[in-house]
Amino acid sequence: MSVLIVGSTALDSIKTPHAENPRMLGGSASHAAVAASFFSPVNLVGVVGKDFPKKYVNLYHRHKIDLEGLQIAAGKTFHWSAEYEVNMNHRRTLLTELGVFEQFTPHLPASYKKSRYVLLANIAPSLQHHVLDQMSKPKFVVADTMDLWLNIAKDDLVKLLPRIDGFVLNDSEAHQLTESDNVVAALKRIHKMGPRYVIIKKGSHGSILSGPGGIFICPAYPLHNVCDPTGAGDSFVGGLMGYLASARGSIDANIRRAMIYGSVTASFCCEGFGLKKTTTVKRADIDRRVKELEKFTKF
Amino acid sequence: MSVLIVGSTALDSIKTPHAENPRMLGGSASHAAVAASFFSPVNLVGVVGKDFPKKYVNLYHRHKIDLEGLQIAAGKTFHWSAEYEVNMNHRRTLLTELGVFEQFTPHLPASYKKSRYVLLANIAPSLQHHVLDQMSKPKFVVADTMDLWLNIAKDDLVKLLPRIDGFVLNDSEAHQLTESDNVVAALKRIHKMGPRYVIIKKGSHGSILSGPGGIFICPAYPLHNVCDPTGAGDSFVGGLMGYLASARGSIDANIRRAMIYGSVTASFCCEGFGLKKTTTVKRADIDRRVKELEKFTKF
Repeated sequence: MSVLIVGSTALDSIKTPHAENPRMLGGSASHAAVAASFFSPVNLVGVVGKDFPKKYVNLYHRHKIDLEGLQIAAGKTFHWSAEYEVNMNHRRTLLTELGVFEQFTPHLPASYKKSRYVLLANIAPSLQHHVLDQMSKPKFVVADTMDLWLNIAKDDLVKLLPRIDGFVLNDSEAHQLTESDNVVAALKRIHKMGPRYVIIKKGSHGSILSGPGGIFICPAYPLHNVCDPTGAGDSFVGGLMGYLASARGSIDANIRRAMIYGSVTASFCCEGFGLKKTTTVKRADIDRRVKELEKFTKF
Repeated sequence: MSVLIVGSTALDSIKTPHAENPRMLGGSASHAAVAASFFSPVNLVGVVGKDFPKKYVNLYHRHKIDLEGLQIAAGKTFHWSAEYEVNMNHRRTLLTELGVFEQFTPHLPASYKKSRYVLLANIAPSLQHHVLDQMSKPKFVVADTMDLWLNIAKDDLVKLLPRIDGFVLNDSEAHQLTESDNVVAALKRIHKMGPRYVIIKKGSHGSILSGPGGIFICPAYPLHNVCDPTGAGDSFVGGLMGYLASARGSIDANIRRAMIYGSVTASFCCEGFGLKKTTTVKRADIDRRVKELEKFTKF
């Protein structure tokens, strides 16, 4: 089954102590879509400017990502630039040029409106609402977010939570939202705000799910070299949704393994700048790391 | 089989935003010994002053901890005082009165010298060396440490590493020792310094083992309330060694499960001040959380 992914499509310029990579394909929807494409067909909704390089359209095509929902607007593509510190744990935004993204309103092509699996990747909560307003009976809707929306659009975000099945956020966002820095307490508080499935991401420490099937502690794949963690969270939730849409049986029966697949997809994302490593990966490479994680967690 | 545990025996005064607890039983050896005692007989080597409260001797006795190696010296028991911040992630040492601990030299009773399982809990590396000098053919020696020894006795510590089988340290200590903040890279570098088993502890994020059987990612038990994390690392390694000494078969066959038992024992430690919660726990409580961790990690 296909996954509908709505989010940002951007050009990222990333600087690390070791290298500088200008105008790579980025954005929450790009990372999530490529990750999901290893498992399921993907329908992408986003916006780019007239300057959007043809090579990135080709990249989407190679991953069989349907672009009927990708608007091409007059103006410049969203451009984001950031710099990582030596240890890759802290980054500093250098530049945010919203371009055509500033006026973005997600319009769903008719054929997308009946999508069963919907990923509201990181965009303004008002736009995430707008997507849901256009949907008819999705089976499983997951939303991601970022600290920015907790700062400037918290009410919209809080109103979104009863409308979605799953909510994914990182530990510092969970702390900000719930005012608890205890992960277990935060999970409980977020459940009370609406979603039946809550996933808190902890970067290289993995992630934790609370859902109807209980707690699941999901490991990160242990990496020897982290090149660029930009998009890892998007890859995680993209891989998770792609796997879920491909799997038979209930969400509950599959969501743990879906997280593992998301975790592994995210691990590849971290090993190259932008989507460079992820786009060289085959499904067999992902399966191999999933098997390794099985070994790494067995006791 | 019994475990020999050598380390500090102290009185801890712990302050948190919620409470103040003066002169509780503490020290690396106390926490480790009580944790190990759930699984195996324990022989304790340490030193206390004449002021050491009888109730704590009784506590050791209740846990069937052999005290032939506990020296009672003229002077005061090591007293350590610290204060935790609201989120329990940062603590500040308020006071360190070494007392009789300043002159401590561990003397092993004759019957301890043939111990098969040896835990060199956190004390000065020179004293850890001195213990090994007295041993005859231990089967499995594990050492713990702390940042202090990396700062003031790094050479002694580095010389200890080829003499031990397993080394346990936390992530910031691993970073300090190896100058790498990548956990996988740090594990490899520490192997090259000697020990076949290296465990890096990551607090509430669990721990990771690298050994002949490969990588093991060990979860922390997810706690809703952390009361006082003092001694959690000591409890972890104590539980680990106690379990290993109790288990049949090779170290490799048992060490992963031993880490899980250590992790669970440490979780109880965090739920009360000092040893207050740990000393109310029964083996069945530990087994119950181990079963929960099995569920929480299954995929």
